Amino acid sequence: MKKKFKKVNASILIIGNEILSGRTQDKNVSFISSWLNKNAGIEVREVRIIPDIKKLIIKNILELSKNYKYVFTTGGIGPTHDDITSESISQACRVTYSYNKEAYSILEKYYGKKNFNDGRKKMAMMPYGSKLIYNPSSAAPGFKIKNIFCLPGVPSILNSMIENCKKFLIKGAKVHSKTINCLTVESKISKELGDVQKQFSKYVEIGSYPFFRLGKIGVSIVIRSVYKNKIEVSKKKIEKLIRKKKIKIFNN
Amino acid sequence: MKKKFKKVNASILIIGNEILSGRTQDKNVSFISSWLNKNAGIEVREVRIIPDIKKLIIKNILELSKNYKYVFTTGGIGPTHDDITSESISQACRVTYSYNKEAYSILEKYYGKKNFNDGRKKMAMMPYGSKLIYNPSSAAPGFKIKNIFCLPGVPSILNSMIENCKKFLIKGAKVHSKTINCLTVESKISKELGDVQKQFSKYVEIGSYPFFRLGKIGVSIVIRSVYKNKIEVSKKKIEKLIRKKKIKIFNN
Repeated sequence: MKKKFKKVNASILIIGNEILSGRTQDKNVSFISSWLNKNAGIEVREVRIIPDIKKLIIKNILELSKNYKYVFTTGGIGPTHDDITSESISQACRVTYSYNKEAYSILEKYYGKKNFNDGRKKMAMMPYGSKLIYNPSSAAPGFKIKNIFCLPGVPSILNSMIENCKKFLIKGAKVHSKTINCLTVESKISKELGDVQKQFSKYVEIGSYPFFRLGKIGVSIVIRSVYKNKIEVSKKKIEKLIRKKKIKIFNN
Repeated sequence: MKKKFKKVNASILIIGNEILSGRTQDKNVSFISSWLNKNAGIEVREVRIIPDIKKLIIKNILELSKNYKYVFTTGGIGPTHDDITSESISQACRVTYSYNKEAYSILEKYYGKKNFNDGRKKMAMMPYGSKLIYNPSSAAPGFKIKNIFCLPGVPSILNSMIENCKKFLIKGAKVHSKTINCLTVESKISKELGDVQKQFSKYVEIGSYPFFRLGKIGVSIVIRSVYKNKIEVSKKKIEKLIRKKKIKIFNN
């Protein structure tokens, strides 16, 4: 009997002109996606990158929070004028944008009363009713409101905070994966991969990714599924077909 | 008198489960964005990353091609079963998905008649009416149909092809930028930055990005605009305000 697995999905909204302009290389998508799958069995199904413009933040928050179980935003919750995520999300959620008492007291303690200036106070402004996502590295908390999780854009700070999202998440079935690396080009094995994908279409997702590294041309075949045993069976089938063609398989 | 600049925008659609799952770190967004601004004065205003699912590709192509002057897609134009971008875009554009004669002949010549198998032939299948985007590194061309440019996902191949998009593009005004690096934290200069942004709101976009490198904590202030002189004037103003606060400014 086929075991039932619970699928939980999420989306990521990267807010920041610096990513869109190409100035900064985003690192948060791959980190959040990997973490969510590994730690909560949640699969990211869509990512959007948008500029720091209020009406666009609101529009995208409304669409993504409706279409996915969770939305994770990164960027725009700092102290400067271009940090408009919290205010925009307040409007999207139709709640007031005001001081969160707990965040205010965390930040006041961290900076000291004397140095707690307006920019720093701004980081305590949140949509009313938000729950805090604590920040062990630089104090300023992120927040969760409805199904929206707001995190900062700086990767090292985001990475230190993500564990604190866990308690708010409903867990799903983890997607497992196995990779077959082989020295060939995609067009030599495309028929075989297509055949196995067709045969296992209900259970596994087979991806094929060419690589060029250390002077070698190869293909990584990635098999993903919530069903560990189906991954093993389809993997063996693919390996057998590839070996029949005298193509070398190797592990990383 | 204010000089008129032509604004041309674009969006990027990254198609690929491997990026969404976190397995592969995307490198194409920053490359395409930087290249478009530098070489064609085109500004990327939205990026979406979606899985290899036909109905989602169609939905997103329709939305982005309507909302932006150009759409650049990456991924899904190879020879394997998970390469469904060309077929999906044919459907989105309501044209037949069929052999492009020129692409067919390029690929047949490249592989040789004997080795021109079905997987390789598949790479000549495109939306009817497409113009080719030539590929100097591995032969298989990308294509342009309507305002949609389809490129491969492998960064080195994409990078080698992008120059061949140029002839199809209407140029806009290049966005220039200057960066001020200073040793401080954002919350110490947020008021000053906000004031200058307000003063120059019609002309420049000031972004503030904290960094942590080589044991130093700092902020990069990025000023972006199509008006070179406005960047200079606002930059001097910011530098003056920062120096007043005894904060050290340094160049990279």
